Order: sequence, then structure tokens, then C-alpha cells
Amino acid sequence: MPPTDNLTAVLHGINDLRLEQRPIPVPKDDQVLLQMEVVGICGSDVHYLVNGRIGHFIVESPMVIGHEASGTVVQVGKNVKNLVPGDKVAIEPGVPCRVCYLCKTGSYNLCPDVFFCATPPDDGNLSRYYVHAADFCHKLPSNMDLEDGALMEPLSVGVHATKRGQVQVGDSVLILGAGPIGLVTLLSAKAMGASKIIITDILDVKLQAAKSLGAHYTIKVEKGWQEDDIVEKIKSLLGEEPNKTFDCSGVEQNVRIALKVTRSKGIVVLVGMGKMEQTLPLSAAIFREVDIRGVFRYANDYPTAIDMVSSGKISVKPLITHHYTLEQTEQAFKTAKTQEGNPIKILIHANPNWKPS
Amino acid sequence: MPPTDNLTAVLHGINDLRLEQRPIPVPKDDQVLLQMEVVGICGSDVHYLVNGRIGHFIVESPMVIGHEASGTVVQVGKNVKNLVPGDKVAIEPGVPCRVCYLCKTGSYNLCPDVFFCATPPDDGNLSRYYVHAADFCHKLPSNMDLEDGALMEPLSVGVHATKRGQVQVGDSVLILGAGPIGLVTLLSAKAMGASKIIITDILDVKLQAAKSLGAHYTIKVEKGWQEDDIVEKIKSLLGEEPNKTFDCSGVEQNVRIALKVTRSKGIVVLVGMGKMEQTLPLSAAIFREVDIRGVFRYANDYPTAIDMVSSGKISVKPLITHHYTLEQTEQAFKTAKTQEGNPIKILIHANPNWKPS
Amino acid sequence: MPPTDNLTAVLHGINDLRLEQRPIPVPKDDQVLLQMEVVGICGSDVHYLVNGRIGHFIVESPMVIGHEASGTVVQVGKNVKNLVPGDKVAIEPGVPCRVCYLCKTGSYNLCPDVFFCATPPDDGNLSRYYVHAADFCHKLPSNMDLEDGALMEPLSVGVHATKRGQVQVGDSVLILGAGPIGLVTLLSAKAMGASKIIITDILDVKLQAAKSLGAHYTIKVEKGWQEDDIVEKIKSLLGEEPNKTFDCSGVEQNVRIALKVTRSKGIVVLVGMGKMEQTLPLSAAIFREVDIRGVFRYANDYPTAIDMVSSGKISVKPLITHHYTLEQTEQAFKTAKTQEGNPIKILIHANPNWKPS
Amino acid sequence: MPPTDNLTAVLHGINDLRLEQRPIPVPKDDQVLLQMEVVGICGSDVHYLVNGRIGHFIVESPMVIGHEASGTVVQVGKNVKNLVPGDKVAIEPGVPCRVCYLCKTGSYNLCPDVFFCATPPDDGNLSRYYVHAADFCHKLPSNMDLEDGALMEPLSVGVHATKRGQVQVGDSVLILGAGPIGLVTLLSAKAMGASKIIITDILDVKLQAAKSLGAHYTIKVEKGWQEDDIVEKIKSLLGEEPNKTFDCSGVEQNVRIALKVTRSKGIVVLVGMGKMEQTLPLSAAIFREVDIRGVFRYANDYPTAIDMVSSGKISVKPLITHHYTLEQTEQAFKTAKTQEGNPIKILIHANPNWKPS
Repeated sequence: MPPTDNLTAVLHGINDLRLEQRPIPVPKDDQVLLQMEVVGICGSDVHYLVNGRIGHFIVESPMVIGHEASGTVVQVGKNVKNLVPGDKVAIEPGVPCRVCYLCKTGSYNLCPDVFFCATPPDDGNLSRYYVHAADFCHKLPSNMDLEDGALMEPLSVGVHATKRGQVQVGDSVLILGAGPIGLVTLLSAKAMGASKIIITDILDVKLQAAKSLGAHYTIKVEKGWQEDDIVEKIKSLLGEEPNKTFDCSGVEQNVRIALKVTRSKGIVVLVGMGKMEQTLPLSAAIFREVDIRGVFRYANDYPTAIDMVSSGKISVKPLITHHYTLEQTEQAFKTAKTQEGNPIKILIHANPNWKPS
Repeated sequence: MPPTDNLTAVLHGINDLRLEQRPIPVPKDDQVLLQMEVVGICGSDVHYLVNGRIGHFIVESPMVIGHEASGTVVQVGKNVKNLVPGDKVAIEPGVPCRVCYLCKTGSYNLCPDVFFCATPPDDGNLSRYYVHAADFCHKLPSNMDLEDGALMEPLSVGVHATKRGQVQVGDSVLILGAGPIGLVTLLSAKAMGASKIIITDILDVKLQAAKSLGAHYTIKVEKGWQEDDIVEKIKSLLGEEPNKTFDCSGVEQNVRIALKVTRSKGIVVLVGMGKMEQTLPLSAAIFREVDIRGVFRYANDYPTAIDMVSSGKISVKPLITHHYTLEQTEQAFKTAKTQEGNPIKILIHANPNWKPS
Repeated sequence: MPPTDNLTAVLHGINDLRLEQRPIPVPKDDQVLLQMEVVGICGSDVHYLVNGRIGHFIVESPMVIGHEASGTVVQVGKNVKNLVPGDKVAIEPGVPCRVCYLCKTGSYNLCPDVFFCATPPDDGNLSRYYVHAADFCHKLPSNMDLEDGALMEPLSVGVHATKRGQVQVGDSVLILGAGPIGLVTLLSAKAMGASKIIITDILDVKLQAAKSLGAHYTIKVEKGWQEDDIVEKIKSLLGEEPNKTFDCSGVEQNVRIALKVTRSKGIVVLVGMGKMEQTLPLSAAIFREVDIRGVFRYANDYPTAIDMVSSGKISVKPLITHHYTLEQTEQAFKTAKTQEGNPIKILIHANPNWKPS
Repeated sequence: MPPTDNLTAVLHGINDLRLEQRPIPVPKDDQVLLQMEVVGICGSDVHYLVNGRIGHFIVESPMVIGHEASGTVVQVGKNVKNLVPGDKVAIEPGVPCRVCYLCKTGSYNLCPDVFFCATPPDDGNLSRYYVHAADFCHKLPSNMDLEDGALMEPLSVGVHATKRGQVQVGDSVLILGAGPIGLVTLLSAKAMGASKIIITDILDVKLQAAKSLGAHYTIKVEKGWQEDDIVEKIKSLLGEEPNKTFDCSGVEQNVRIALKVTRSKGIVVLVGMGKMEQTLPLSAAIFREVDIRGVFRYANDYPTAIDMVSSGKISVKPLITHHYTLEQTEQAFKTAKTQEGNPIKILIHANPNWKPS
């Protein structure tokens, strides 16, 4: 008897997240049907839940939540060659149009016609079953598990950011903000050969996590500190100016620090989502030819992320702090909202057979 | 009898520019002695004259003015191999330290120990005679004259800007500001293959110059126009978003327009010197991975600039609007200050034998 | 009454090219049906006709010939947004799989699962009607005609070659071989800003064509000339070593010359198809860090090729030497085989309404 | 009393290496005087000793040997700012002209006017004292010793090779030849994030060294093996084609394997010095756009090499197999020539106070 349970987490409106049954979908020729396994909660999920929107993206009709996910292939479309039932995969949540110029030149993350899980109006995959384009399901090597698989999504953000920053052996890297994005950027920078990594945050607990993941220096920023003092502290701790700086906070003061502290001919990568209007000392970077680059999601970064973990360069396991079942989705989001217990990554296990280890 | 006249334009303080005799210098082993020929007036020269400073650079003791120059070699140091007396050269005004990491990696424009003509405390070359590092004197091909030679300095700024913007065949280029820097950027963009060039300014006379130099579209920006309207006008005239945008104005509104109007995955190059603090819609560019790059002077760009002209791709002659002798330096600077007669490039002829043609 | 005539040129075996009726195909959702207009004859077409194979590609069952083509859209699939009936298009003959790593990273020309017109076993488009992926049909600007459109295919080879060679303003370019590929490489190098172009061949008539298309220097290579003498001649004519060299001949001696003559840190691009085993002075290039790069078809180059022509940088019209109707296909190929009348580009007009002008 | 002993190893002709006293040199303004500490023997040193020449470089008058060296600063010229007496440095043996285009664009390794230790006619530094340009003396961090310092020279070759090959996280690297250059390439590839490294050689002892330095797979090539079989073995062991291949052998069969086995759009780097004329299946690489790149020495690679070791990414200590004093120079070269005891790196200690630990 085929399965019929497709419990699904659907966002109906602000703070209105419901678990409901949906039909199990049927894969098209180029798709696979996945038993969903592990789905992490992202800051954007919480944002949609609490605010109903992020910028121009507005939840106007019920939307399945979830996009940091892994699954097990249960059925494949007739054209699928890269996967077979039983394969465990990390799910890259954006499937682009494949025909526009950006897609054809390798920048499919900027495709204007992308389908992207849990970005309105596209449904996400916090559910028992889900169909997805086979080529955006990345088979996990045997030395990686399904929790690693779900974490490939945030890690890919870090990979994309550090590729944009062209991190390489010998780099002195500054990361502003030690939240989940700061930490995956740190992991990726480390895997790509950064020689010194300094990270800042306002919370000790986050800096301790950063330290345990390999940060060489940390700075706990206190209220009222002036940006120029922080600039000096960074240079003094590092013994030089960083040549690559990543803002993973979106905080205006941090963007300002990035522009001032980065070495001539270095790169500032803005990963964090900040407010639209910022007052910035642009000249501080511009006349020293410090480039400023943004980051939007990722493109061709999942293979790199998987390789970083499977080759043993880094582990994403220390990012995992909380586990819930699909039935406990409400509690999982409550933890995410309240930040009780200092969560880094909260995972929801969508497979009913999952048992805490 | 060796020459003894070395009339020299020396800036003694704010609005205190004097012509005085200085000894004719003797070239070191790697230098050449130059009969100065043509020296253009740059906005920065006027700035030093009027304000006594630009940012951190302050005129604290008398400084010879002038750095957009050509000359004729009259004597060579014993190690000089690339030049012989009689050669006509374009003088690249910055001579870097040659030993720091930036110098060794090809970014000598950012060398912190550079000697740079007429940037305090370094003397410029608005004089009869001047010595300079031989390898920073670029021999002019036979089809270029000494006026072209002097214009290689501003053109190199355009070349550096368009190289930073990676202008290539097929690009749709937006240039904000049609002053001298906007115009050399236009010329260089054209030489590098830009297919469509649109340029904005607030003065009709400048836009007419731009048009005659090859701009496909011009926009005269009126007082009170909103930035979003200008963004729409640009897109509408161009039929698409520009993929490469150059701000050559330093005006905050223009930087804002650049960030908003540039195509996803495009490049914004900031050439103009603006105020230190600017309020900017950074996210408008960042989340579409529009890169923001600054420009500081030039490095390895003189050969390209010379080639653009000698190969016939562009002519810099239309930029020349005024001629003065060295003795008329005061009048020349007066014209530069008042902008009477709508000057683009004002040239001072330092060779006493020069005669207006 | 819908059209029924779909006269089609089918290669049945060595020297067995037949005109026969085929059903008019129906476009799929992402395809368009094209009235074929102009189809150029490529060296590879002749090769298949005469030898029945090129390397591993063997004509094992009847194959429609033709892949340098333009057409008019007559019907669009339901998902097609970029074209409407009546649009005139240049047809990019390769449609890749869109799912492999090479496709996703912008190198779709190397996709192992590509469909490519008239490369066995894929049918070409020398016929009255033909269906093709809409996104690989490039709409022609109003200032380009259908003959230009057909020539975008060979020009794209030149564009791809010169992009691989990173041709830019100031380059001294050497092209070895002045056949059609040498000439499109020349045109593209010129459009991308090459400042000096020198081209070699063994036939005067080809060098004259090259000269008229913009070559600055030509060398007619005589039988028995030694490679080192040719190297010297090139340097002497050019006044320096070329920094970018394109072999468009596939001749071993030319590849040898390329490796020897190219300037330190320059690039050698191998465009011509040569014999598998070649005896080469590799060290001559290697220890001077002259890079060696190959070329396979093109990727994302059609837009550039179209822009080069529509922006007036170059004209492909001088390449066209012969015109035939579809009914005259046999004669057209005869001219291609015998090279009588020194053909450069031979065009076949597939639209029955075409009339010689 | 100032030191007077400057025992120096001077090559007078083929197999005529003599230890003789030379005056202690005096540093110029931009130079430092170094107490030489550790000097490694390079294959090229042995080549000059045995053959009196390498290619065009011929030992025509007595030449001091040695160029893989570290030293201690004993005196600094008056312009020197980066070093003080007592500093321990790795000596980059090539000092370029600093004025040519290649120097100014960051490719100083290709400078035609370079001074290079122990490349005729330039003297090397196997002596008690030696003067060198201060900016080509790289201060060793406190966690690196003088033996590490001497090994920065060969490691820089590996660094340059892997930079030319753009090695990054996720790469599958093939190295052909496990001699000293193969091993430093391996170390550098590992430090730059290569995920899988496979290395071939004909000697087990070298492959064991490679294995202990981090190679994932090794292939012992037996006499008479066909190249296509080796190609298959590589693919089979690696589970895919390598995307980056380094020939560190100079053997024609290996270059052929490199061209055939490397993945489409990959890079082949030729590090080994092979015979001038090689018969190669160039098309095998060219039509898959596999780039072929050479390597000549290094430029701006010492800082990276030092960082790789000081940051703990790799250790060069396992490369050191033999120690001799300066007085034992003859024996040291004998070991290098006979390869008795399977030397990898043989170090000569030039400081008379050195004692074996």
C-alpha cells in the first residue's frame, strides 16, 4: 500500500503556521519524489512567520515553509539519470528557468524566474513528501548523513560568500557577526585556506561557538563602542588589516567598519541583509580600490559545500543545537523565535521513523 | 652654453601661485631630464590652489604644480635604455616604491610610498625642465603629438576606470557626469568596445561635447528630478538596464542611481570623488550581485591609453579647448576657476618656443 | 491552407546528398517553428559529405545537413516568451542538456549531451522548415538581415576564440591561416580592440580578403620556408612579438610557430582542427608562461557576435561570395568542394521566395 | 673584530666545484648582508655541476652555486626598512629589474633582466656571507626555523604551479612524478584545498613519501605500461577524471597522459622540464578546452609558501633527508648525484656554528 501521510507545515498568515495533510505529489520526467528527512529552520522562515514578508516577497496565500533540507529518493521521473530510489540527497531549494542569460552564464542564483522553496509564492518542503528537480538534488557521499545534508543549504551561503570574496591561502579574514551565517562563512573561509580569521559579535555565546569552529581571534563588541575603536582593535589583534571582510550582520556600523578596516585592494563581501538606506563612508574603501560585493543565495556551490565536509576539512555538526519532529514544528519555531537555549541550528525531522539518538 | 631658464609654477599657499626660477635638476642614473612641453590643468590642481588641500593631502610648503604633462628628453641617466635625447614622451606622474607587495603584484597605483607630481609634498612639473624616472616616461609614437601626450594622464584615468569595469564588446554603459573625467571614461569605453553609451549631466554644453565624442544617448538632468525618475529615463532611453555604470560626478544622487539602475551581475565603478559620508540604497545593488569598485589613479594604463589614440580608435584632441604659455599660468588657472568659455582641457605650453598654431 | 513543402537536404552517405520532402515538424512548448531562410556551408559539412565522418562523429544513418543558419519564426510553443511569429532569428545550432555541471557553470559548449545540428546523429536545418529551442534562436536587430544572421554561426567561433584569447585594446594579434575561421577571428579581434593584426596564409587571394577586412600586415608563406624564418618575419613586420596568437589552420608548422613567436605571458589559441599527433616545441611556450587554450564551438557568444555587427564595429557581408537556392544545393556543395571562384562563404537560400538581388 | 671567513662553493667547470675564500660583500642601500644558514641542493645545481649548462644558460666563468637558502641578517643598507640585524629570512633568489612591463604587471618571474642566484652568470649563495635585495628576503615567523626557510624556495615552485592551476576546494588533482617538485606541488595543492590527490611515479620509495605527505592515491608505473592503460587506472582509482593535472616529470608519456586524462574545462600545468620536441595528442585536450599552462619559477609566492607552513596547513620537514656542513659540500653533491639513501632534500649548513641535532 502506497504511503498517504503527507503532513505538511503550511504558513497561512502572520504567526499562523499549521500542520495539515496534503496529497503526495507525483514527480515529472525530470524530477524525483523525496521522503523528506531533515529540515533546518532559517532566519528567513522565522521572518515570514512573524512579519508575513521579506522586502518585496509577501506571503499572500498559504505557503509551505522550509528550504534547508535533505531527503531520500523514493521515486524518479523517467528522464532522471543521476539518482535512484534510496539515494540520500541534499536539496538545493532554487530551480532556475535554465533559459535566461544569467542561467546560461553560470549565475543562475540571479535568475528572475527561479522557483525557490518557501519564498512566496513557491512552496517549501517541510513535509513528509516533496518533488524536486533531480539535478538540484545532490547525492550525499557515504560519509555524510542526512543532518549534514540539511546543513548544506546554509553552508552553501558561506561557500558562495567566500567564493565571491576569493578567499585563499594566506588571507586574513574578518567576519562581522557570529550568527549562523557568520559561522558558515567562517567554516567555508577555513576550508578555503584562510590563515587568520577574526570574528566579532555582541554575544559571548556566539563568539565561543566561533572559537570552537576555528576562529583565531574574537571581539565582543560592547554597547557604545565607536566604530574607529573597533577598527583599531581589529587591526591590533590581527597584527594587520584584514584583506577580506565579510559582513554577516547587516548592521550599518559593521558595514562602515568593513569599508574602513579592509586592506587596500582587498574585498568586502556583504552577506547580511541590512536596512535599505545606510549612511556609509564609501570613499574609505573606494580610493583604496577595496571592492564591495554582494551575495544572493548560491550557484554551483552545493558540490563545494558537500566536498568541504566529506573531505574532512570542516564539520557542520557543531552548528546543530536542537532537534524536533515534524509534529513539534510549532515548538521548533518557538525556540527559533525566542532564541531560548541559544540555538544555532534547529532541525526538524520530517521522517516519522526518526528517533533522537 | 647650457640652458639656465627653469621658470617654474610654485604654489605657495591658497590662491598664491608664483612663477619663479629654480635650478635645472640633474637626472640620476635611472632618470631622464625633460624639456617640459605641454601641461594640462586638472581639477585637483585648481582644488589645491583654492583650498590648499584635498583630504589628507595638505600643501604645507611651496609645491610645484602640474602633473598632466608631456616633455622632450634632453639628457638620460647612465642606466637608461628605453629613451634617448630627442624622444617625446608622456609623463606618468606617479613613481612608486617598487618594493612593496602592491608594487610587486601590479597594483602600484596603491603603493603607500609613491612619489606623485603635485600631490603634497611632491613637486609637480609645470616648469621648463624636470627630471623623472625613465620607465615612467612613455615614448610617443610618431603619429601622436605633445598635446596628445599631455592628455594621456586624464585618459589613463578613463582607461583605468573602464578596465576596473571590464568594459567589453556588447556592454551598455552609463556614465554619470560629463566633465573631463566623464569624457575620458566615455572615450575609453568606446575604444574598449562598449556598444551603447548613455551619459548624464546638468549642463547642455557638456552633453554636446559627450555627443560629439560618441555618446549614443544623453540626459540633461534638471533640478528637482527624482532619482527614480532618472532611473526610469535611463532604462527607457537605453532600452534595457546598463550593465556597466561609471559615476564620474561624486554626487550622492548619482551614486544612488548607479546602485539602482545597473543590471544584475553588472559593475558600478566610482570614479568621482564624492563627500565622505553618503546615504545609499546599498541593498539595491548587493542582492543583485552588482559589484561596486573604486578607482585610484592608474597602473599600467598609459600604454593602453597611448595605443587607443595611436591606433586611431579615439582622438583626445576634441577635449582641448584652451592654450596658454607658461608665462600665462595665472590666466590659465583663472579660466579653470571661472569656467569661462566652458573649458574642458586647458593646456599650458612650457616650451618657450611654442607658438599657437 | 498550411504549407506542406519541406524540401530537405539529407546526407545519405559519402557523396550522397539528396533533396527530399520531410514532414513539417511541430514545435514543442519551448520551441519555435522556423521558416528556414539562409544556410551557409561550413567546412565540416563538406567534410561529412566527402568523408562521412569527423573523428568519432560518423554519419551512420541519413542526416539532414546544415547548421549555419537564419530563419523566420512562423509558430511558437506555448511557453515561448522571447519570440513571436515574424521575428527573424540567427539559429544557434547547439542545444545543451541544461542540467550537467558544465551547462550550469556557463560552459554549455562542452556539454556531453548536447543536440547539435548536422553533427551525427543530430539533424541539421538545410530545409524549408525546422523546429528549434526558442532560447537558442537569437532575434536579429532591425539593422541586420537574414544573411548576416546565417553568418553569426561562424562569427561566433571567432568570438569564442578571441574571448578565450582575452583580446583587448592594445593587443598585437597573429592569426595563422586566412580561411573562413581565420577571417572571422580577424573580424572579432578587430571588434574587441586588437591594435595590430598580422595574418599568414599560403594563398594571396585569402590574404587580400584579410587585408580588406582590416588586417594590418599579411605574410604569404611560400613552400619550403622554415618555421624560424617565419617567426622572424612576423616579429620584424609587427615590430614586436604578438601577445595573442590564433592558429586557424590546424597545420603543425603553424602551431609550432605559435608556440615560438608569442610573447612571454601571452596566449596561444588553437582554433583549427589539426592532426591528432603533433611534434611540438612545447618548452618554447611553457617556460615563458605562454598559455595554450583550445576552442570548441561557442557558448554565450551569439549575443556578442550580433552586437559586433549591429553596432557597426564590423561587417560580415564581405565574407559572402556565393549564393544558391535550396534546389541548387548540389552545385553549392560542388563549389565548396572545388573551391572554384575562391569562395569564402557560400550561402544557400532555403526560402522559395528568395530572389537574387 | 669583524668576520673574515667567507668560505664559498664555486663551480669552476664540469664536475669542478671548489670551496674557496671570497671577500665578505658590503650591502648597498637597499640590500642586506646575510650570514648564510641553510642551503638546499636543487636538481638544477647538480645539472650545472655535471653538464655545465641548462639550455641556453652556460657556466662560462666561475659561479658560486646555491639558491635554495635561508640566512640571518647581519647588516642592513641605509634604505632598508623591512628588516633588522638578527632577523631570520628565506631568500628569494631572483631579483628582477623592476622597470619592465612584466615586472610592473606582477609577472616579475618572467623579467628578462632578472638577477637569479646560481643561474649563469649570476653568483649563488652557498657561502658564509652574501648580500641580497632586502625586499626579496622574507622574514620567517617565529614558529618557522632556518631549515623551513631554505625549503621555501622549492615550495614556492609548488605554490606557483598550483596557483597557475587555480587549485581550490573540491579539486581532483593528478600529479605525475613524485620527485621533489612533485612533492612540493602535492603539499601546496593540499594546502590550497584539493580534495583528492593522486600521484604517479616509477619508484615505490617516492610514492611512499607522497603518501606520507597526504596523497590519497598512488600509482607505481611499471616499464612498458601503455599510456591509455595508465589513463584508465587514474580514472578508475580517482572515480572520475582529474580536473587539475600537474606534470612534474618532464617525461613525454606523462605530458601525453595529462592531455588525455584531464576533465573537460580542466587545467594541465607543466612544471617539469622536458625535452624540447615532444609528440603530443594536443587535440585530446584542445577540443575539450583543457588549458595548458607552463610554470617558470615563482612571483609573489614566497609569502604564500611561508603562510602555508606557519599556519600549520603543511609541514616541509618530511622533505629533509640529509644534512651536511659547508665543508662537506662535495659529499653533499655526491649524494645528490648518486641518489644514495634516496634523498629528497639535502641541506648544507653554511653557518660554522651549526651542529646536527
